[in-house]
Amino acid sequence: MLLRGRLRAMGAVALLLLLLLLLVVGFFLSGRDTECERRELGRRGGDPCDLCLLTPRVLSDGLRAAATLDGDPCGSRNLSASSLQPLLPPKCELLHVAIVCAGYNSSRDIITLVKSVLFYRKNPLHLHLVTDAVARNILETLFRTWMVPAVAVSFYDAEALKPLISWVPNKHYSGLYGLMKLVLPSILPLSLARVIVLDTDVTFSSDIAELWTLFARFSDKQVVGLVENQSDWYLGNLWKNHRPWPALGRGFNTGVILMRLDRLRQTGWEEMWKLMARRELLTLMATSLADQDIFNAVIKEHPELVHPLPCVWNVQLSDHTLAERCYLEAADLKVIHWNSPKKLQVKNKHAEFFRNLHLTFLGYDGKLLRRELFGCPNQLPPGAEQLQQALAQLDEEEPCFEFRQQQLTVHRVHLTFLAHEPPPPRAHDVTLVAQLSMDRLQMLEALCRHWPGPMSLALYLTDAEAQQFLHFVETSPVLSARKDVAYHVVYREGPLYPINQLRNVALAQALTPYVFLSDIDFLPAYSLYDSLRASIEQLGSRRKAALVVPAFETLQYRFSFPNSKAELLTLLDAGSLHTFRYHEWPQGHMPTDYPRWREAQAPYRVQWSADYEPYVVVSRDCPRYDPRFVGFGWNKVAHIIELDAQDYELLVLPEAFSIHLPHAPSLDISRFRSSPTYRDCLQALKEEFHQDLSRRYGSAALKYLTALQQSQSRA
Amino acid sequence: MLLRGRLRAMGAVALLLLLLLLLVVGFFLSGRDTECERRELGRRGGDPCDLCLLTPRVLSDGLRAAATLDGDPCGSRNLSASSLQPLLPPKCELLHVAIVCAGYNSSRDIITLVKSVLFYRKNPLHLHLVTDAVARNILETLFRTWMVPAVAVSFYDAEALKPLISWVPNKHYSGLYGLMKLVLPSILPLSLARVIVLDTDVTFSSDIAELWTLFARFSDKQVVGLVENQSDWYLGNLWKNHRPWPALGRGFNTGVILMRLDRLRQTGWEEMWKLMARRELLTLMATSLADQDIFNAVIKEHPELVHPLPCVWNVQLSDHTLAERCYLEAADLKVIHWNSPKKLQVKNKHAEFFRNLHLTFLGYDGKLLRRELFGCPNQLPPGAEQLQQALAQLDEEEPCFEFRQQQLTVHRVHLTFLAHEPPPPRAHDVTLVAQLSMDRLQMLEALCRHWPGPMSLALYLTDAEAQQFLHFVETSPVLSARKDVAYHVVYREGPLYPINQLRNVALAQALTPYVFLSDIDFLPAYSLYDSLRASIEQLGSRRKAALVVPAFETLQYRFSFPNSKAELLTLLDAGSLHTFRYHEWPQGHMPTDYPRWREAQAPYRVQWSADYEPYVVVSRDCPRYDPRFVGFGWNKVAHIIELDAQDYELLVLPEAFSIHLPHAPSLDISRFRSSPTYRDCLQALKEEFHQDLSRRYGSAALKYLTALQQSQSRA
Repeated sequence: MLLRGRLRAMGAVALLLLLLLLLVVGFFLSGRDTECERRELGRRGGDPCDLCLLTPRVLSDGLRAAATLDGDPCGSRNLSASSLQPLLPPKCELLHVAIVCAGYNSSRDIITLVKSVLFYRKNPLHLHLVTDAVARNILETLFRTWMVPAVAVSFYDAEALKPLISWVPNKHYSGLYGLMKLVLPSILPLSLARVIVLDTDVTFSSDIAELWTLFARFSDKQVVGLVENQSDWYLGNLWKNHRPWPALGRGFNTGVILMRLDRLRQTGWEEMWKLMARRELLTLMATSLADQDIFNAVIKEHPELVHPLPCVWNVQLSDHTLAERCYLEAADLKVIHWNSPKKLQVKNKHAEFFRNLHLTFLGYDGKLLRRELFGCPNQLPPGAEQLQQALAQLDEEEPCFEFRQQQLTVHRVHLTFLAHEPPPPRAHDVTLVAQLSMDRLQMLEALCRHWPGPMSLALYLTDAEAQQFLHFVETSPVLSARKDVAYHVVYREGPLYPINQLRNVALAQALTPYVFLSDIDFLPAYSLYDSLRASIEQLGSRRKAALVVPAFETLQYRFSFPNSKAELLTLLDAGSLHTFRYHEWPQGHMPTDYPRWREAQAPYRVQWSADYEPYVVVSRDCPRYDPRFVGFGWNKVAHIIELDAQDYELLVLPEAFSIHLPHAPSLDISRFRSSPTYRDCLQALKEEFHQDLSRRYGSAALKYLTALQQSQSRA
Repeated sequence: MLLRGRLRAMGAVALLLLLLLLLVVGFFLSGRDTECERRELGRRGGDPCDLCLLTPRVLSDGLRAAATLDGDPCGSRNLSASSLQPLLPPKCELLHVAIVCAGYNSSRDIITLVKSVLFYRKNPLHLHLVTDAVARNILETLFRTWMVPAVAVSFYDAEALKPLISWVPNKHYSGLYGLMKLVLPSILPLSLARVIVLDTDVTFSSDIAELWTLFARFSDKQVVGLVENQSDWYLGNLWKNHRPWPALGRGFNTGVILMRLDRLRQTGWEEMWKLMARRELLTLMATSLADQDIFNAVIKEHPELVHPLPCVWNVQLSDHTLAERCYLEAADLKVIHWNSPKKLQVKNKHAEFFRNLHLTFLGYDGKLLRRELFGCPNQLPPGAEQLQQALAQLDEEEPCFEFRQQQLTVHRVHLTFLAHEPPPPRAHDVTLVAQLSMDRLQMLEALCRHWPGPMSLALYLTDAEAQQFLHFVETSPVLSARKDVAYHVVYREGPLYPINQLRNVALAQALTPYVFLSDIDFLPAYSLYDSLRASIEQLGSRRKAALVVPAFETLQYRFSFPNSKAELLTLLDAGSLHTFRYHEWPQGHMPTDYPRWREAQAPYRVQWSADYEPYVVVSRDCPRYDPRFVGFGWNKVAHIIELDAQDYELLVLPEAFSIHLPHAPSLDISRFRSSPTYRDCLQALKEEFHQDLSRRYGSAALKYLTALQQSQSRA
C-alpha cells in the first residue's frame, strides 16, 4: 500500500519532469539563434557533441543530425539518431506533400517515392501534384485504380505555370519544370499553410510525419526548411572559372523543402525571388541548378528565412557527395536523394545499401499499400466502399468464387509506362492492340519488325516484373528505337488472367481512328499495316465494318515468314502452315471461309456463326470486351457476338493475313483442360453473358443462345 | 553572447532533467512490484490512463502497452505507442534469437519471420536454431547462400532433445517440437545469458532491438518475459467440460519469450517445470498447447518469475482473439503472431492489414537484405569477402560483363521447398533431373503423368513467384498427390538464366543411384521409368555408362502421345513427329543414329562427335555441369564432352524415347539470335572451356578442340 503510494508519486514526478524537459528542449531547439544554427548559418558546424558526451544514447535527432558536413557529428562516439524519436504530429493529422512531375520517366519515379512514403506513413496524406498532360494522364489513372485509403490527390496544371517562370533561363536537365517549386506559394490553395515539397528522385526510409514535425522548430521568421547542400558546388572551387550562383557557404539543397506557405505569401516571396533572379541574371546568364540557385541567392541575402534541417532528411547521393559525414548508421537515414544524373548507377561508399533501399520500393507490390489507416477515421477512396461490399457478398465456398473475385478485382493501371510519341492524326490509321504477360516478352521484337505502325499493348505484370520489362526494352535496340508503341502496365492480382480487362485497357488507349484487335502470339504479314490502311480508306469509313484478317498458324519452331499471299498459299499446300487451330477448334475460324479467301480478289462478306472468333479491324469506338471472361476461353467469341449484335458487317480482306507462332499451352488453358470446375465456371459465364445479351438486344439475341445450345449438343 | 550563454545553461539544465527523469522512469518500470505489474499478475489491468491523461502523446511504450485486455489502454484517448521509442541497446550489440524449427512448412515460415526481423534490425544477430534433419538441410544451405552480413547461425539437433520431453503427452499440432522451448536453458551454450525465443509463425513490424531492451526492465527475480494470452482459453469457459491447464487469469502466450537463461539455470528451471508437468499430468492426461501449458502452470505457482511484456509484442491472431483491445493503431504493432491453425485465412477485424504486412515479407526479395550493417564492424559471412573482390575486379565496360557477373552470382537456394518423401533406397532406381522457371509450370502435371518415379527439379524464381508456385501445387490434385518430387527453389538474380547452376542444384539433390538428365520441355515415354530401371539393372552398374534416351519432337500444339516405340515410328513416318531439332540443329543428336535405333533390339554404343548433346542416364556421381555456361547455348554439349573425356560409354537404349513439346523461344535464345555480342560471349566461354579441358585432360582433350574448330569452319 505504502509502496504503491510512493510509486504513484514517483510516476507523477517523472511526468512533470518530462513535460518540463520538453518545454526546455522545445525552446532550445526552436530558438532561431541557437548555438547550432548560428554556426550553421555562418560556417556550418553546430557540433552538438558536448551534448553527446553527456548522453551517449539519448540525443534528439534534431540536435544531433543538424550537425553538418564539417562538424563531426560525434562520429567517433557511440551515438544514434534513432535513439530518440521526435514527437509525432497529432494522431491522424492530415499531411500535405507537393511534387512537380512531368513526363514519362518522372511519372515512374514518383510512384516509387510515393510507395516509400506510404510504407512508413501513419497519417492521412494529401498529395498536390503539379503535372504536365502526360504525367496527369498517367497519375490520375494510377491513383484512381490504386485506391489507397487516406490519400487525397490534387492536380495542378504545369502548363499554366510556365509563363510565371519561362523568363528564367535554366541550364539544368529538369528544364522549366525545375523552376516550378518557386511558384508553389502562389498556386497552392490559400487555405494551405504548410507543405512538404519533394523532388521525384527521393526515397523515404522513415515516417514522413517525423519530417512534418520539424515545422514546429521554425522560429517566427523562418519560412523554408532546407538541408545543406552536400557537395562543394556552391563553394565555386570545383573547376577553373566555375562560377556558381551566390549561396551561404555550401548552400542548401531543394530536393526536400518544408514550406510555410502562409509566411511565404506574407513576406512577398514572389517579388523577392523574382527580384533576386533578375539581379543575378544580369551577370550569370542562366541558372545551372534551376530553382535551387534562386533559393540560395535569396537565402544568402536573407539568412533569417531558412530553417536548416538535419542533413539526414536529404542524404544526397551525387558523385562527389559528402553525405557520409552526415550519417553514422542505417538508423540515421531518413530520406535518400538520388540527385545525380547517374541515379542508381552513382558510385559511393554505401551505394549498394542505398540501392537496396530504393529497389525495395521499386519492386514492392503496391496493392499491399491499400491497407486502411486504422486508428484514424475511415477514409476510403471513391468506389472502394462498394467494392468492399461486393467482395464481402461473395461466397468463398461457391465453386466459381475465384472467377467472381477476379471479375471484381480493380487492378492498378500504369498507362504509357515508357516514353511514347502519339501518332500524327491520320484519317485511316490503325493501331495494333494486344495484351501479354512476362512469358511473351520475346514476341515484342518480332512484332515490331512485322508491324511498323502504332501499337497499344497491355502488359500484365507484378511491380518487380515491370522493372525487368523496362530493362528488357532499354537493352533492345529494336524496341528502344520505337516510340509509337504504347505499353500500359496492368498490375497482377489474383490467380486468373484478366484477359478482357487487359484488352479493354489497350483498346481504350489506342489513338488512331481504327484498331487491329490481335493477340500477342500472332505475327502480321509484313504488308498488313499498309494494306489495312488502304482497305480502310476504301470501305472502312463507309459503314460499320469489322474487317477480318484471316489467321493461320505454323507449328514450326523456326520458319521463314511468307512475304506475300502467294508464298503463304505455297506453304499452306506444303503443309508447313495451317489455318488457325484447324485441328483443335475449327469452328473458331470456319466462317472466314479459307477456300474462298484463296481465290478472293476483293473483300467479301461472311455471316456470323457460333464460336466464331476472327481477328478484326474496327473503328476504335467499337464495343468493349466483356470483362467477365477471365482466364481461358470464349473471351473473343463474346466480343464478336457483340459486334454482330450491333450489326457490324464482317468483311474478309483478300490480301490480309497473320500467323500464329507455336508456344507452350498457357497456365490458364492447362487449368481449363485439367479442371472440370474451371470448365463449369466458364459455362456459367457464357450463360450469364447470354442472359445479358437478350436483356440488351431482346429477341434479336435469341439466335446466339440457340447457336450456343446447338454447338453444345454437338459437343 | 549573453543569449548564447543563457541557452547553453538551459541545454545543460534540460539534460540534467532528462537524466534524472530516466533514472526515475527506469526504476518505475523495472520495479518488479509496480502498480501495473501487480495488477497484471493479479487480474490484469495496469491501466496507465491516469498517465495518458497527463501526457496524451508522450507515454512510454512499456507503460502504455503493458495495459492488458480488460484495461482499456486509453483507447478513447489520443495516444500512440509510437510517440516515444524506448532506448535501444548499445549500438552494434549482438542480439540472440532462438527458434525451434522442424519440417518443410516451418522451414518456409521461419524464412518469412527472419526476413521481417532483418528488414528492421540495426544490430548483429545470432540465430540459434533447434532443427530436425529436414529443416537443418534446408536452412544450412539457405543461410550459406543467403550471405547476410552480421548474422551468425548455430544449429542444435532436435533429435537429441526428444528424450528430454518425449515423456510429456502433447495433443498440440506442433507435436514434440512444441515442447522443446522448455529445455532451451539446458541446451543453449552456458555463455548465453539472454535470448529471445520465437515461434516460426510470428512476423515483426519493428526493430527486434526494441524487444531486447525490455530485458532491462526485469526485476532481479524475473526469469521470463511473456505477453498475456489474448484468448479466453485458460479461463476454461470456452465450452462445457473444457478443462485447460492452470494459469494466472488468461495466462501467457509463449510465441514470444524473453529468457534470462542464466537465471533459469540458477533457479533450477529444469526441475521446476518437470515437477509441475508431472503433477498436472496426474489429472490432465496431456498438454493441449504444448510448452505453453507448462509455462503457465509454473507461473501460476511462481508469479514472481514472469515479467509481463506489452501486448503489442505478441499480437495474437487466433480466431476469437481479443488482440484488438491491445493496439490502437498500426504504429502500435510490434510483432504479429499467426497462432491459429488457419494462419493467414484467420478472420478478424484487421485481418487484411495483418495479411498485407505478412505478404510484404513473404514476397520480399531476400537478396535486398544482404545489405551490410554499416556503422558496426564489418561482419561479412564466409566467402562474401572473396566474392566482393572478384566482383570488384570485373570490368563493367567489358562486352561480356553480364556473363562474368552472372557466373559469380551466388543465388540463394531453398532446397525441398515443399514437403518431400525421399524414395526408398533401391539399387537401380533413377531420378528425373530438370530445371525450369515460372513460364514452364504448366509442364509439371504432364510430366508427373509420364514419369511415376522420383524427380529432382530446380526452379528459378523470385521470392514472390515461389509463393505463386506454392499455390499452384496446392491447387493441383496431380501435383499435391506426389511426394516423391523434390522442388528446389533457386532465387532469381541477374539477367541471364544460370541454367547449369540450376542443373547442378537439382543433380546434387537426387537421392537415387542413377539420374535421368532431362529438360522440362520433354515428356518421357510412359514406360521410360520402368524400362530405364531394367536397363540399368542389365548394364548400368557394370561400368561407366551414359545411357542415351533418343529425343524427338512434335510441332503440334496438342497431339496424342505414342504408347510404344511402334506407335512412335508410325507418327514419325506420318511426319507428325520428328527427331529432335532435325531442322535447326541436326548435329546435336546425329550421333544417336536414329536409323539404327529404328531397328535396334539391344543397346548399342555410339561415338562422341562435335556438338552432341543427348539426354542421358548416368550414375548420380557423374561430373557436374559447367556453371560458366549461363543463358542460352552449349550448356549440355560441354557436359557430354566431360563425360566422354572421362571415358563414359555412350549407349543408346532401343526402347527408350522422350518427346519435346512446342513452346515459344525462350528470352535467352531470342537474345542469342538478336545480339552478336551475346554470340561472341558464348564463343569466348567455349574457348575458355576448352583451355580448361586441355589443362585437365592434356592431349586427350585435343580432339574436342579440333572438332570445335572444324564445326566452326563449317558454320
